Amino acid sequence: MSSYNQLKNIFHDAALSSDIAGILHWDMSTMMPKNSRENRAEQLAYLSKVRHQLISSNKVGELILKAKDESLDDKNRANLREMEREYIMSSSLPSDLVEKISSASAKCVGIWEEARKKSDFKTVLPFLEELVILTKQESLILSEKLNCSSYEALINKFEPQANEKKIKTIFENLETFLSPLIDQIIDKQKNEEIISISNLMTQEQQKEVGLFLMQKIGFDFNRGRLDTSQHPFCGGAYQDIRITTRYNEIDPFSSLEGIMHETGHAMYELNLPSEWKYQPAGQSRGMAMHESQSLLIEMQITRSKAFKKFLSEILKNNFKFTENCWDTENIYKIGTRVNKSYIRVESDEVTYPLHVILRFNLEQKIFNENINLKDIPELWNQEYKRLFAKEVDNDSNGCLQDVHWYAGLFGYFPTYSLGALTAAQLASQLREDIKNLDRQVEKGNFNELIEWLKLNIHSKASLYSTNEILQQVTNSELNAKYFMDYIKNRYL
Amino acid sequence: MSSYNQLKNIFHDAALSSDIAGILHWDMSTMMPKNSRENRAEQLAYLSKVRHQLISSNKVGELILKAKDESLDDKNRANLREMEREYIMSSSLPSDLVEKISSASAKCVGIWEEARKKSDFKTVLPFLEELVILTKQESLILSEKLNCSSYEALINKFEPQANEKKIKTIFENLETFLSPLIDQIIDKQKNEEIISISNLMTQEQQKEVGLFLMQKIGFDFNRGRLDTSQHPFCGGAYQDIRITTRYNEIDPFSSLEGIMHETGHAMYELNLPSEWKYQPAGQSRGMAMHESQSLLIEMQITRSKAFKKFLSEILKNNFKFTENCWDTENIYKIGTRVNKSYIRVESDEVTYPLHVILRFNLEQKIFNENINLKDIPELWNQEYKRLFAKEVDNDSNGCLQDVHWYAGLFGYFPTYSLGALTAAQLASQLREDIKNLDRQVEKGNFNELIEWLKLNIHSKASLYSTNEILQQVTNSELNAKYFMDYIKNRYL
Repeated sequence: MSSYNQLKNIFHDAALSSDIAGILHWDMSTMMPKNSRENRAEQLAYLSKVRHQLISSNKVGELILKAKDESLDDKNRANLREMEREYIMSSSLPSDLVEKISSASAKCVGIWEEARKKSDFKTVLPFLEELVILTKQESLILSEKLNCSSYEALINKFEPQANEKKIKTIFENLETFLSPLIDQIIDKQKNEEIISISNLMTQEQQKEVGLFLMQKIGFDFNRGRLDTSQHPFCGGAYQDIRITTRYNEIDPFSSLEGIMHETGHAMYELNLPSEWKYQPAGQSRGMAMHESQSLLIEMQITRSKAFKKFLSEILKNNFKFTENCWDTENIYKIGTRVNKSYIRVESDEVTYPLHVILRFNLEQKIFNENINLKDIPELWNQEYKRLFAKEVDNDSNGCLQDVHWYAGLFGYFPTYSLGALTAAQLASQLREDIKNLDRQVEKGNFNELIEWLKLNIHSKASLYSTNEILQQVTNSELNAKYFMDYIKNRYL
Repeated sequence: MSSYNQLKNIFHDAALSSDIAGILHWDMSTMMPKNSRENRAEQLAYLSKVRHQLISSNKVGELILKAKDESLDDKNRANLREMEREYIMSSSLPSDLVEKISSASAKCVGIWEEARKKSDFKTVLPFLEELVILTKQESLILSEKLNCSSYEALINKFEPQANEKKIKTIFENLETFLSPLIDQIIDKQKNEEIISISNLMTQEQQKEVGLFLMQKIGFDFNRGRLDTSQHPFCGGAYQDIRITTRYNEIDPFSSLEGIMHETGHAMYELNLPSEWKYQPAGQSRGMAMHESQSLLIEMQITRSKAFKKFLSEILKNNFKFTENCWDTENIYKIGTRVNKSYIRVESDEVTYPLHVILRFNLEQKIFNENINLKDIPELWNQEYKRLFAKEVDNDSNGCLQDVHWYAGLFGYFPTYSLGALTAAQLASQLREDIKNLDRQVEKGNFNELIEWLKLNIHSKASLYSTNEILQQVTNSELNAKYFMDYIKNRYL
C-alpha cells in the first residue's frame, strides 16, 4: 500500500474517534444524567488520547515525508497538506498534556454551569486556573512550532493561518466604525414603536415553528435532530448532525434565531463532499468559515425583511398567530433592534463585534501578558464599560456568561466576528449571483440559496484554504468593508 | 510498575471503550437519526477493534504470566483470573474477524427492523447468513481454545463456565415438568373473571407510573435515565445506566413490567463495587446472574400479590385510577395469567422457558448441525408446534420476533432461563432471611430487599464465579427445584 493510502487509513480512524467524541459531547449536553460528568470526562480524555496517538506518531511523520514523493492529483495533495497540518499541530503536544486538557475542561464545564447560575466566579476559578496553566503549556509548544505568539497559536487551532496582528487591525477599525454608529442607531430606533411578543408563544410552539423552518431550509431529519441544551451548538458526527437551542418565552424569537444559526452550521456539515468522508480535506474549513455559514443564514437571511414577510405569513397561516404583533414590520423591527446587552448570544449583529473584541482583548492579556486570573471579573467589567459605557451588574452577565473559556476554547471568540465579516462578503456576491434572492426568500424558497452555498463553500470543504475560497468566490481576500456597508444599509 | 498494575491500566482503557460503545448503542436505539446506521456501525466496529487490540496483544499475555508470580491478595487474584479469561476469549480471535462481526451485526439489525415490520424473513436472510458464517468462524476458534462444542463456546461468551450438556439436561427436565402443567394452569384459570384494563392508561400515564416505581425501587435518576426503544434493554456506561421500555395502550402493564425488569438489571449495575470500577472483577457476573436480578424484581416481586396490593393503592391514591379493574385481585390475575403466546417477551413466567428451549434447540442445530438458514422459519414453526401445540401465523410472530440473532447474539437465550432458575433459588433464600418481605413490599418499602441483593450479589461483581456466589448465598449449586416449587405454589 502506498504511504499516502496508509495515511488515509490512519486519518480515517482518527475521524471516527472524533465522530464518536461528537456524539458523546452531544449526549453530555442534552441527555446525560447529572452525576455522569466525571466518567464522561474520562471517556472523552481517552478518545482524545487514542486520536492523538494515531495522528502524532513518528510513523505518520515518516509516511508524510514519503507520500510527498508519491504521485498525487491536486485534491489528494490538498488532503496530504491537511494531514500534515494536523500532524504538526498534534505531534508537537505530548499525549498526557492532551489528555489532561480534555479531562480538566470537561470537569471545569460542570463547575461553570453551577457557578454561572449563582454568579459565583470564585467557585470555578481554581478549575479555570488549572485549565489555563495546561493551555499555556499547549500554546507555548505550538507557538514555537508555528513561530508566532502564544495567543496566535491558539487561534490557529480553530482558524488555520489566522494572523493575530491582522485581526487586531481589523478589530480596531471595526471598533472605530461601530462605536459612534451604535449610539446613532439606538437614537434612530428610540421612537420606533414595537408591539411586544413576550409570552405569546409557548416553548412547544417555538419548537414547532423552529422545526418547520429547519425543514424549509432543507435540514434532513433522517440525518440529524434538534434538542435542547443550556448553550446552543451544532455537533454530532459525519452525516448525523445534532443541533440544539434553548427556549425563552419572554423572547420567543431567541430560540428561532438560534435554530436558524445552528441550521446554517448544519447545512455546511451535511453538504460536505461524500468522496472525502473521514479525510482531513473533507472536513469543514476553519471556524470563521463555519461561522460565516451560520451568520449568513441567521443574520443576512433570517433578519431580512424578505424573510420576516415569509415568517409572518407562516405564523399567521400555519400556526394561527393572528395578532398584529406578528406583522412583518413589527417582527422586522424586533429582529433588527440594537441594544447594549450584557449577553453576547442575546446581542444584535451591530453590537456583537464589540462583545468579541472585549474577549479578544482579554485573551491577549491572559496569554501574552500573563495576568492573574482572579482579576478577570474586574478586567471584563472595565473593558465592557469602555466599549459600552455601561456597568456590568454581576458575573453571570459578565465573565461567566459563555462556556468557551471554561471548556478550554481559548482563541475561538475572534472567529465569530471573522465569520460575520466573511458572511457579509459572501452575501454581497450571493446577491449579485442570485438577483431575485429576496423574492425567493419571501416565498420560503431556499433551494437556490443553499445550492449556491453548497457549490461555492460546502463542497469545497478543506480542499482549499479560507483565503483561496474567498478569492475564488468573491475575487477578494477578507475585507471588512462589505460588513460595514451591510450594517449601514440595514440600520441607517 | 508491576506487571499486574500495567494490566490494570490496560483493562481500565478497555473498559472505557466498552462504556463508550454502551452509550453509542443506547443512542442508536433511542435517539439516532435513521440514516446514521451505517456510520454508527463503523464507529462501533472501530471501538471493538481498539478494545480488542488492547486486551489481546502478546504483551498482555506476557504480563499475565508475570503477574501470576507477583504477590496479590485474593481479590486482586480474582481480578487477574478475569483478565486472563477475557484475554483468552479475545486473543484467540483475529482483529479483522471481530471488526467484521461488529459491522455485520449492526447492519443486520437495521435490516431486521424493517423485515420484522413486514414479516419478511427473506430480506434479512443474506445478512443473517453473513453474520452466522462469521460467528461460526468465531465459535470454531473459541471451541478449540476452550475444548468444547461450537455452541457451548458461544454460550460461554455470556455465561462463563456454562456447560451445554448440563443446560440440555435442565431444559429437558423443565420441559417435562412444564408441558403438562401449562394446560393444567390454563384450565384452572379458564373460569377466572378478569376485568380488562385495555386502553385505560395512556402512554404518558404508563411512563409516569413507571418512573414512580423506578424511584421507589431506588433507581437514582442522577445516574441513569428511562427512554423508549423498539426492544427494551438496560445499557449505557459505568454509573450511567440507560434503561428503555416500549408502550402499548392495549396492554398497559407490559411497559411497567418491562420497566421493573430493566430496573432489576439497572440496580445490579448501579450497586457494583466502586473500588473495582473499570476492572474485570468489577463487572457484573455473567448474563444468567444478570437475568436473575431482573427476573427477581419482575417476577418474584412485581407479580406477587403483595406488590399488586401496593400498586393498586398507588394507582388509586397517587394516579387517580379508581375503577374496579385496578383492584389488587384483578391486577394480580392479569399479572399471573398463563397463555400460549407467540411472543417471548409478552409471555408469562410459566411458558417462558419453553420459548427459550425452542431457541436453544435451534441454536444447537445452527452451530452443531450446520442447518441451512433458509429453513429457520420452518424449523421454528415445527418446534413451536411441538412445544405449544399451536401453528405460528407469520414470521413476525416467529423467527423474526427477537433482535438477538440479527445482532449476532447467539448463545444468549439460554441465560434467560438459567436466570429464572437462579432468581427462584435466590428468592427462596431471601424469603428465609427477610421474614416479613411481603409486608415490606405491600408498603412499597424495597430498601431491605435491595440491600440484601447488594450485599449478596451486586457487591460481589465478578470477584467470584456464578457457582461460588450461589453456594455462598444458598448453600447449593443451581437447582431447578426452587423454580418448580415456586411455579407450583403460585399457579396451582
